[in-house]
Amino acid sequence: MKTVSIDDQQNVSTTAGRIFKIIRDHGPLLGTDIVRRTGLAKSTVSAYLERLLAVGLLREEVQESGKRKKLKVAESAGYVVGVMIGQTKVHVALCDLEAEIIDSLEGPIDLLRETPECILGRVVGFARELEQKAGLGPSALFGLGVGLPCPVDYVNGVPVNPPVMPGWDRFPVARFLAQEFTCPVFVDNDVNVMTLAERDKGKVLEHGHRNGSFMLVKAGTGIGAGIVIDGELYRGAKGAAGDIGHIGLDGDSTVCRCGNTGCLEAVAGGRALVARAETAARSGRSPFLAEALERGAVMTPSLLAHGAASGDEECIRFVISSGTYIGDVLAKLVNFFNPEMIIISGGLTCLGERFIASIRESVYRRSTPLATSDLIIKQSSFVESGGMIGAAVLVLDEVFSHQNVGNLMRDHEG
Amino acid sequence: MKTVSIDDQQNVSTTAGRIFKIIRDHGPLLGTDIVRRTGLAKSTVSAYLERLLAVGLLREEVQESGKRKKLKVAESAGYVVGVMIGQTKVHVALCDLEAEIIDSLEGPIDLLRETPECILGRVVGFARELEQKAGLGPSALFGLGVGLPCPVDYVNGVPVNPPVMPGWDRFPVARFLAQEFTCPVFVDNDVNVMTLAERDKGKVLEHGHRNGSFMLVKAGTGIGAGIVIDGELYRGAKGAAGDIGHIGLDGDSTVCRCGNTGCLEAVAGGRALVARAETAARSGRSPFLAEALERGAVMTPSLLAHGAASGDEECIRFVISSGTYIGDVLAKLVNFFNPEMIIISGGLTCLGERFIASIRESVYRRSTPLATSDLIIKQSSFVESGGMIGAAVLVLDEVFSHQNVGNLMRDHEG
Repeated sequence: MKTVSIDDQQNVSTTAGRIFKIIRDHGPLLGTDIVRRTGLAKSTVSAYLERLLAVGLLREEVQESGKRKKLKVAESAGYVVGVMIGQTKVHVALCDLEAEIIDSLEGPIDLLRETPECILGRVVGFARELEQKAGLGPSALFGLGVGLPCPVDYVNGVPVNPPVMPGWDRFPVARFLAQEFTCPVFVDNDVNVMTLAERDKGKVLEHGHRNGSFMLVKAGTGIGAGIVIDGELYRGAKGAAGDIGHIGLDGDSTVCRCGNTGCLEAVAGGRALVARAETAARSGRSPFLAEALERGAVMTPSLLAHGAASGDEECIRFVISSGTYIGDVLAKLVNFFNPEMIIISGGLTCLGERFIASIRESVYRRSTPLATSDLIIKQSSFVESGGMIGAAVLVLDEVFSHQNVGNLMRDHEG
Repeated sequence: MKTVSIDDQQNVSTTAGRIFKIIRDHGPLLGTDIVRRTGLAKSTVSAYLERLLAVGLLREEVQESGKRKKLKVAESAGYVVGVMIGQTKVHVALCDLEAEIIDSLEGPIDLLRETPECILGRVVGFARELEQKAGLGPSALFGLGVGLPCPVDYVNGVPVNPPVMPGWDRFPVARFLAQEFTCPVFVDNDVNVMTLAERDKGKVLEHGHRNGSFMLVKAGTGIGAGIVIDGELYRGAKGAAGDIGHIGLDGDSTVCRCGNTGCLEAVAGGRALVARAETAARSGRSPFLAEALERGAVMTPSLLAHGAASGDEECIRFVISSGTYIGDVLAKLVNFFNPEMIIISGGLTCLGERFIASIRESVYRRSTPLATSDLIIKQSSFVESGGMIGAAVLVLDEVFSHQNVGNLMRDHEG
């Protein structure tokens, strides 16, 4: 057998990146686990592990005496900043290299009125404050990730046609922040970012489907979905994948703000629920809501949830009908996509278990038996931290890509 | 910088496989193209190319004098057999290593009455006959691929719950054929197989989306879809992905043979069309069909197509309504999946351009503008060969996987 010279930089990078990814996805692991998973020679694996340990990207896990030491990501070798921008609040977190939150800050914003410069200026301020509190220098900052509540051109890091954010359309969010921080910046829509949090830190990980296929549904004022296929975020040909809020319900004539009729979010989203609650309050059809209106209460999904919990029949009907509409659409998508899990998140999850159960019931009733045989439908366990964690994961996926790990290793070795 | 020993078999296999795949997907290519695409050192690429040429898996393309020679798959270094089993016909093709048909045979079968042993026996006979005619020995047979008109457990190569094929449920198709041919055998459902033909030899390749994301819709008696994501077939958690024929149309009460109501294929599939044609013929509402019935003609989609072409209004309505129902479902899936292309195939494409136009019109009307901005919807250009070609591609994808190419190379060098 001839021998081939393959000792070049590209191959070293690829192999280092592969080994690092396996440890990131499945660690802590023993060297022998990595030999088994890669099929590489023991000596090769050892040599790479030595280099990754030497540059500080990996560390040995502290073990009880007598046990062999496992390898994991050196989570304190640097940090990333995860940012979630919402309609009324911004959340900024300092995270370690395993996307665990070290510290975070939040502040009120008005996305509909304030300029991008003003809101992103606040983000910069929060990040600087967190860095100082933690005593971390900017050289340890591996990157910054941002989730925005609108469509995003991911490659260029700019919002595209945000429906209700004047001044944000095509504003260079990534470039603006990269100039401040001199680190890589990645911007994606909030649903994709939350999907990554579920994959690496949420129920998807808990159920062992981190490297499988699942969808996260965010049901709030709008309704959208994030899609993961074989462990990787799927954005679609135009970055438009997962836009399930504008899937049409056959025969429904409710007018959506997009101009179409019968869109899922126009029928089952937060705004639709609030409108129906107002009507039911005024007509007195819901005694609970009528009384609340009299007290001057604002109609919200959370008020509906209270009404349903207190036994108000109209409120219960609203909760079930929203879940059923969403479930009917998901049933179609389950037939097509056959995911391992569906995670439900967003403001409407305040509607409680009855809401989730209606979604589940519709999917099981209307999808094929094979596609639902092991399908898990769960509510997200994140409350507010999912966005920040997901934005941190977004950064880590990029800076720890196959190619970059090799480069990081060589940079450190100088 | 430390040096690392990476001269082990796994890495050689992976790199050989990667280079071979790039040539298979993008070839013919120059050595410098491969250097650019892989980032590998020129000397490394040369060494691998030399080995792949020496064992006969690659060959140099014949060029006009003066031009540098490009590399491509040595398509005649072996062959594969592609088999498509339908309800009434079986097609068997001998293909080269680029899935080009060298020769093919077909014969009538009755899938609903004949045993698997009987039908697969016929497949064996056809394959042997083709081998002999081509003067090829069994040692050059790289593998055999089979498309079946039912759900298939791909990993085990067995049909699962075929609705109308008694005796086939869990019959070990792959094992049966592997014993005959002593080569790897891969079995998948017909829609997935046809999807691979579109990717490597059909309109998807023509439009430059071979490594992108698309779906193939097979509309015939049943309706199903094949899904390709980033150039790879996506089967879903349970192998059930793409089962769009049983997506429910909201509010429709047509009973489907699956027991549910309003399934797409029960409303818009071939059987539904034929039933509606019979009613229209009997009632006289369609003069064209009434006359055909009187002549003793059997109601078929192709008869409806003739009626529509001759201007019969009821026939035109049937054609448009089937296309519109299918398009309405695809519109929902386009919002979710955002593919680059949709290919329409199957028996109902005999309904002609009016049918395709109705599908297209519904998708453009009811999907988001971003998801449809560059979406291409086309009819498949394959008539009968798509299944055989796709079955051959299925085999080639497997035997030319990263790992296998390295093994093949070592076997030949052995």
